[in-house]
This record gives sequence, structure tokens and C-alpha cells, in this order.
Amino acid sequence: MRNSTRSAVDPFIVMDVMQAASAAEEAGRHIIHMEVGQPGTGAPKGAAEALTKAMGEGALGYTVALGLPALRARIAQMYGEWYNVDLDPARVVITPGSSGGFLLAFTALFDSGDRVGIGAPGYPSYRQILRALGMQPIDLPAAPENRYQPVAADFAGQDLRGLLVASPANPSGTMLDRPALSALTDACAANDMSFISDEIYHGIEYDKKAVTALEVTDDCYVINSFSKYFSMTGWRVGWMVVPEDQVRVVERIAQNMFICAPHASQIAALASMDCDDELQANLAVYRRNRNLMIDGLKEAGFTDIAPPDGAFYVYADVSRFTDDSRAFAAEILEKAGVAVTPGLDFDPARGHNTLRFSYARSTADMEEGIARLKAFMAAR
Amino acid sequence: MRNSTRSAVDPFIVMDVMQAASAAEEAGRHIIHMEVGQPGTGAPKGAAEALTKAMGEGALGYTVALGLPALRARIAQMYGEWYNVDLDPARVVITPGSSGGFLLAFTALFDSGDRVGIGAPGYPSYRQILRALGMQPIDLPAAPENRYQPVAADFAGQDLRGLLVASPANPSGTMLDRPALSALTDACAANDMSFISDEIYHGIEYDKKAVTALEVTDDCYVINSFSKYFSMTGWRVGWMVVPEDQVRVVERIAQNMFICAPHASQIAALASMDCDDELQANLAVYRRNRNLMIDGLKEAGFTDIAPPDGAFYVYADVSRFTDDSRAFAAEILEKAGVAVTPGLDFDPARGHNTLRFSYARSTADMEEGIARLKAFMAAR
Repeated sequence: MRNSTRSAVDPFIVMDVMQAASAAEEAGRHIIHMEVGQPGTGAPKGAAEALTKAMGEGALGYTVALGLPALRARIAQMYGEWYNVDLDPARVVITPGSSGGFLLAFTALFDSGDRVGIGAPGYPSYRQILRALGMQPIDLPAAPENRYQPVAADFAGQDLRGLLVASPANPSGTMLDRPALSALTDACAANDMSFISDEIYHGIEYDKKAVTALEVTDDCYVINSFSKYFSMTGWRVGWMVVPEDQVRVVERIAQNMFICAPHASQIAALASMDCDDELQANLAVYRRNRNLMIDGLKEAGFTDIAPPDGAFYVYADVSRFTDDSRAFAAEILEKAGVAVTPGLDFDPARGHNTLRFSYARSTADMEEGIARLKAFMAAR
Repeated sequence: MRNSTRSAVDPFIVMDVMQAASAAEEAGRHIIHMEVGQPGTGAPKGAAEALTKAMGEGALGYTVALGLPALRARIAQMYGEWYNVDLDPARVVITPGSSGGFLLAFTALFDSGDRVGIGAPGYPSYRQILRALGMQPIDLPAAPENRYQPVAADFAGQDLRGLLVASPANPSGTMLDRPALSALTDACAANDMSFISDEIYHGIEYDKKAVTALEVTDDCYVINSFSKYFSMTGWRVGWMVVPEDQVRVVERIAQNMFICAPHASQIAALASMDCDDELQANLAVYRRNRNLMIDGLKEAGFTDIAPPDGAFYVYADVSRFTDDSRAFAAEILEKAGVAVTPGLDFDPARGHNTLRFSYARSTADMEEGIARLKAFMAAR
């Protein structure tokens, strides 16, 4: 069968690492996983309990395309609590994970061939989803001195139809503060570009609160998910906040593309929003891990890092040690027994000089991993 | 914000009916629902029990993009049991509902502007998803004498890149037998067209078994779901069977577009496959309802129908009564208290002359609905 051009999606380079790690484990080795992008914790207990109860009470058929009204209302309430933003629940759209949000946002806003700016380094699927939809992702190489976040000068004269940013970002963990967000949304408005803000790591933040794009403008799409702070990775449920005049457009696309987000997951998600104690305990682990990692990586010799404001990643420039991050990651796996992600998935042009370290797993794992990295670097 | 051209998705006409039905119910009227496209039953008990158990045992994080290996293996086993087809589990891809299957199949096979043939009447979202992906859906008006299923002559010289058929079909409930399927797959092979077979209603069949496209060729995409026979509508889990050389292509797209199908739903789906007793009891209700409907609709005066081989719909030509199926459906709702779907969603060109009656709900509801339709038609 003949495949489309748009189906030529790049493989994830981290898959090589994961397969090698898995092979090593099957061979009896103990591997520390600093390559993973998901919490090791499951959905909060209250979420599972709510779902078990709901399954006993009736059929979980389709919900309306925009999602359960109670969930949309609870999310709107959260914007008041977290950001002091007054949000109409009618602007909240429940999606099948943030993945579903990207598909909806890109479809609503962009046509075949449209150029859409994404910060590099960034989440690799931005690029791949845009391509799979027949659009053109344009990498905006963000400067280390800008903490790997794009600034308006990065896309001046690029003829873009839209800009997608993430704060806290994957892989860097850095955030855009209110002036930085305002500068970007102003530049987009001035250039007739749509602005999409990926806020999936909100809630996982350390020294200061993350700023939502809704604090600076209503003229944007905000994408979020229950996968990170709410620890519901495999449930595939998230949300978007869109301008009032975009709700009907997005609703029609969602009806056809998805019918609805999984009903069971929506019920569990609603309950997860009242499980603060458990979620804050998860956050306390990330916080401890982050401190261990920042100090430990520096002591190991990985000194060129932007201290992460949020998420559970550290992005390190390793150009002092290698020009081939893929080979370097393979060497770290083999010699130190630590799986890490080469930067190439996040930044095809410059990622040969970078690694991403994830600290989403247990503190004990992080301590052991750092000890191994120190020994490896000392012996190198 | 400026919207894309591809975002201009048609609204569902049935939504007007559903809103009017809902308003009537709020005003205290009793409405019989023959407009619904989903089982009234929930997931089998065994599915819910399996999920409750799994939630107690560990975190339901991401699965691999192709889905839980046990579920893929169980589905392959089913092809042996149902069709005597020997299927490699490696060719089975778990998807977020059949909706996810369409997104994956269209992306893997077609590029922007590609012309893709779909039978009319047919499931409206085929057309809308293709448009949302920047492709061109080409309606192939299927003849009533071909029981509303497309034949090769319908697309001769149309310069199509692919053909999508459904058997049993929505809205007609008619099936393609083995010679009809062979003729279509041969014609596609001869014209370098990809063949996609929507088999979502398999298992809900009455006088004879539905034939899978895999019985006549391996060179096709088969799309199916747990939403209909397995009664797991709101769970958003389904599957595709693809040619061996397509697995990697589809896997990479799925990794980026969806990450995975909902983990909880995959666990419930696996358990549902061992709940034959409950599922066969559901089927017995559809069978009773079908017999009631075929006789009752004819007695009411709806004589121009293709007796449905499967699914839970009857598609009726009502041109003897009206040229405006939308107004006719509104009249039936108002005067008879029965919600039915005008054919326009399924066949924009000819649906002004047709209605779809669904018999997915309880037998008691169907009996009452038929009585109301008879009285309405007699008084008209």
C-alpha cells in the first residue's frame, strides 16, 4: 500500500534508549530510568473510587463532545483558585489528553502548508502532529540565554500563522513569566498569528507559580491535561480553554474527530481535582528530586543547565563532553546503568549537544542515579 | 482569531432533533428515542470488575502506542473464532475508538487534497474527518437496488486515492458479502487505491455472519471498535488491522497523535471479550427489536426499506411523503413524540428523501414507538 507523504513521521530517538534499557534489564542489569516523561504515581485514590462507584450506577455512554458539564465547571473554578482568573465554563473543552487538544487546535486554526512556529527545544510531537496534519512546523531555535524559551525576535519576518509555546517547558523546565508571555501574545496579535499555550506542567512548579496565558489575553488557545500534576497519564483526558467565538468551531471538529473524551476518564478526572493531599505529596517528591538533581548533576560535571522552574526535567548542554548526544546517552546507559534522553528528539538541529534528565521517579532512584552518574563522569 | 478553511465542519442535522427532543422532555413530554446511535446498555459487568481490580493493583500509565499486547493477542484470536482468519497479533493496532482509527488510517494513506471515496449514505464523520485533515471526501451515491452499498462502477474514472466502505453500514444496516467485497478490493488494487473497511457493527448481525475484508485480502485497513457489539460506547477504544508493512508507519503516527488508547479502557475491553452471555443477551434484544421494526414500519406505511442485515438501524425512503426529511422528522417528533434522524447527515444530496430509525433501545420503547408512528401515519 502506498503511504502518504505526511505519514513520514520521525521515530523517537529515545525509543532506542528505552529498548536498550529494556534489553539490559532482561539481561539482569539494574537500570535507573531518567528517560521517562511520566509520573511513576497512578491516579489519586479518590479518582479510582469515584470511577468504581460510577461503574456501578449506570452505563458510561458518550458524553457530549465538549465534555461533562460538571468537569468543565470544576476546571473553570480552578482558574479562579490557581490564577485569580474569572473563566466562563463554556470556554472549557474536555479533550482526549493534551494530544487531542493539539489535534483540535491545529485543525481549527491552520490549513495545509501553513507555517507554525514552535520553540526548539520542545516536545517532539508538536512537530510530528503538525506534519501529520499537512502543516509546516518551523523550529525557532531558542537561546540558552533566554532559558530556551522563544522571544519575539526569534520569529520576526518568518511569515508564521501561529506560535506554540510551553511553560513550564519540556525538556528545559523553564517558564515564561507574565512580561515574557505578554510580549509573545502582543507580537502574535500584531502579526495575525494564533497563539497556543501548552500549560500541561502547570501545578508542578517550585519557586514561583506558573502564569497562564489567560492572565494576559483571552485571545489564545490554552492546552492542559490531567496527565502530569493530576497524575493520570494513561487516562487520556485533558482540556483546552478557547476564546468564546471558537467554542462552536472546536465543538464540531471534536464531535467528528473524537465523539468525546473517555467518559470513565472524565469521571476520574473530576474526582482527582479534590485529591489535593495526595497530589501535593507527589509534588513534594518532585521538589526533593529537583534539589538533588540540580546539585548532583553539577557535582557530576553537568554544569551547563537552566535551573528548572517546573516540570520534572533538567536539560543539560553537554557540548564540553560530546558532539554526539545519542552515542553519549548509549555510553551512559552501558557504563553507568542510567537511561537518559539525547536532545535530538527535542531539537533536531542542536540536540546533538544536549541531554534531558527526568526526575519523575522515586527519590531513592534519583539518589542512586546521581551516584552512578558521578562515578561514571569521574572515571571518564 | 482566524480559523482555517478545514475547520468549517458541517453541523450534525440530528443535533436539531436531539435538542428539540430534549426541550420536549424538559417540558414534560415523553419521547421515544429512535435517533440514537449507541447501545443503551453499558460495558459488560466483567469489564467493570476487571477495571476495578486493575485500579487497585497499580498505576495505569501509558501503554505502548500499539496497545496492550494481551489485548492485541485476544483480538487476533477472535479473528480465528469469528472468521476462521489466521491473524498475526502484530498487525493489530489498538486505537482510541474507531474515530482514532480513521484519523490514523487517513493520515497514513492520504495527503492534502487527495480524493477519497465514501459511500452515500454513510457515517457523516467520514466526510468531516477527511475535510478536517485537508483531504477531499467524494460521495459515491449508492443505488437503492445495490442496497445502498457502493459498487466498482460507482467510482470508475473518479481518480480516487482510496475507498472507505462499511458493512454492516450505518444508516442502512446492509452488508457486503464476500463476492461484493472481492469486487471492490480488486477494483481498488487495479486502480492503486487504498481500501479501508469499517467493520464497527460486526457481531450485530442477524440472518448471516458479516464478512471481514481480511477474508478476501490482506491489502487493506480494517477498522473496528468496542463501542457497538461490546457495548463500550463511551470508553473510546477500538482497533485496526493493517498490512504487516504498515504497522511501523501507523505506530509512529499513533505515538505522536495519541500516545496510546486509554489504558483503563483497554483493560475493560480485554475483559469484555469474555462476556459472551451478556453480549449475546444484548444481541437478542436487537434481534427482537429488528423484527418489530421491519414489520411495524411497513405497517405504518414506511415500505421502502432495505431490510437490515446488521447494526441497529432501518433506513427508509420517505419520498412518497415528503421532499424535506428535516421538516418531516420535526413533525414526527412534535406529533408522534418519536425522535428520528433525517437522512441529510448521511447523504447530503439525497437525504432530503430519507429517514433513519434506530432500534438500539429497549423492546418496550420500540413497541411504543411503532404504535405512535402507526397512529401518526394513519392520521396524516
